[in-house]
Amino acid sequence: MIETRLTTRFGLDVPILSAPMAMAAGGRLAAAVTRAGGLGFIGGGYGDPAWLEREFAQAGNAAVGCGFITWKLAEQPELLERALEHEPAAIFLSFGDPAPFAPALRAAGVPLICQVQTLRDAQAAAGAGADVIVAQGGEAGGHGQSRATLTLVPEVADWLAGEAPQTLLVAAGGIADGRGLAACLMLCADGVLIGSRLWASRECLVSDAMTDAAIAATGDDTIRSSVMDRARGLNWPERYTARVLRNPVTERWHDDPEGMEAHAGQIAAAWRAGWEAGDPETSNTFVGEAAGLIHDRPPVAEIMARIADGAEALLDGGWNGALR
Amino acid sequence: MIETRLTTRFGLDVPILSAPMAMAAGGRLAAAVTRAGGLGFIGGGYGDPAWLEREFAQAGNAAVGCGFITWKLAEQPELLERALEHEPAAIFLSFGDPAPFAPALRAAGVPLICQVQTLRDAQAAAGAGADVIVAQGGEAGGHGQSRATLTLVPEVADWLAGEAPQTLLVAAGGIADGRGLAACLMLCADGVLIGSRLWASRECLVSDAMTDAAIAATGDDTIRSSVMDRARGLNWPERYTARVLRNPVTERWHDDPEGMEAHAGQIAAAWRAGWEAGDPETSNTFVGEAAGLIHDRPPVAEIMARIADGAEALLDGGWNGALR
Repeated sequence: MIETRLTTRFGLDVPILSAPMAMAAGGRLAAAVTRAGGLGFIGGGYGDPAWLEREFAQAGNAAVGCGFITWKLAEQPELLERALEHEPAAIFLSFGDPAPFAPALRAAGVPLICQVQTLRDAQAAAGAGADVIVAQGGEAGGHGQSRATLTLVPEVADWLAGEAPQTLLVAAGGIADGRGLAACLMLCADGVLIGSRLWASRECLVSDAMTDAAIAATGDDTIRSSVMDRARGLNWPERYTARVLRNPVTERWHDDPEGMEAHAGQIAAAWRAGWEAGDPETSNTFVGEAAGLIHDRPPVAEIMARIADGAEALLDGGWNGALR
Repeated sequence: MIETRLTTRFGLDVPILSAPMAMAAGGRLAAAVTRAGGLGFIGGGYGDPAWLEREFAQAGNAAVGCGFITWKLAEQPELLERALEHEPAAIFLSFGDPAPFAPALRAAGVPLICQVQTLRDAQAAAGAGADVIVAQGGEAGGHGQSRATLTLVPEVADWLAGEAPQTLLVAAGGIADGRGLAACLMLCADGVLIGSRLWASRECLVSDAMTDAAIAATGDDTIRSSVMDRARGLNWPERYTARVLRNPVTERWHDDPEGMEAHAGQIAAAWRAGWEAGDPETSNTFVGEAAGLIHDRPPVAEIMARIADGAEALLDGGWNGALR
């Protein structure tokens, strides 16, 4: 068993958090992660109160956390109260300024987990009182920025060691197996956040067609883009793009924002229809570069066991070499 | 001491290759890496025969390799013969099709090391008979593409395990300390390639001003761009960009290729003058995201010892946690 500050602080058997993937990470997925010894998160995302209630119900009595897209939560801050009523194991904020929400969490005694994509934002999150900082590299699926996990994690670790040593650090982006977990522990992370690999699970709220498309893809087949947000009319701050599978939508529109604006209504309708149908060709499949490491859609429990077992074997000396 | 297939195959004390950084990695740097137990490379780059002769002479009797920019070597293939006359420890090809050069190396008994940036190119390099594949993530300084080290390395490792198990795998991009080396060993690499960290060394052919700028920077302060190649009039294939420090040149021109073309002559002259002066503000400083992990400019021998010692401590159980 791998013991770190993260497993100790949250009472886990394995230092793994699941990504609160908007619309995909529901209560079943989150609960399965927690039951497998990690800490599962419901993806509160853009903030649909009915969806949130339903998914907390689906999680049953498993201790799960809840994540929000911070800039979106700022538009409907009452949702945080709704989430807090469920006594979440933690609240996870990403993509925006977490500071306005920190006092309510502190008052409720709920840990604040802040996901960041730059050193600068890590410093801001620590300043806002984050209990855990998730340093997310651009290889991640879905929204993020461009810095890579391999440099961002140790750089944030060095800064935290000097300025906020009690703050835990979790690595995110590109981690899909025991190798990724073991590697991130070497980078001074206290644990990892897993998105894409848990997205391709039985419990995830995503179509078989999109999952199959990701399974068929290699890591070469993804792109960071904002076509999906422009298609949906979501006002994401410009610095955040989302990694998705390359498909006819990205090929046609990624380099043509003006053309996209000129046909906005038509594109929005087609994209929405594709999304409702779970179609990987006419909407977008949100998955990271780790798609190239994903070849099946097993239950969450099996994924968690594979990652933990793989990392333990490596940490126990099972890498391709030896110390002499 | 860390023993891997790479140290065994090349008779090294530490599984580290130095990046053949064009114009920056001369004979002194390459020889110092080899003398420190790794394998050093002269950066043949764009192919200046006089520079190459001088730098091989500077390397003295240390066994060093030589690297070339493949698409540029294709324009003056006779340079490969010049390099082979020096009986290099290996030839390192990156950024283009290595296949045309493989027969000459095989005939000379010189190992072929191919750097790739995608799974597809790794497959092509293995097909061309590469002895070592260097999987380079986009966090690297200088030229490259966008895939990240953390996903590219294990994905290439899985493919090689099935299709070309005798081919060695080296990780590149974002590795600047013992953490990066240990992490990449967890990802199934047989060793690592170090660029930026060795670039910020006493032996590197780069100005103090550019080194100081990189030391002052965080990993947030770099960008992948092609402004430097447009400024120099170099016909790099479009898919390759170079990571440099953000500065007035990238801020002004990165998003304005048309404007750049309209002022090409003037921009070229200013850039060249800045480059000759080693000025980080008016030309470009080629360094990776690992800039945020670089805080000094020590001799190569000290850098190599720090990386090896750091990795050994981690592999010996010195990470922030424990197996129970």
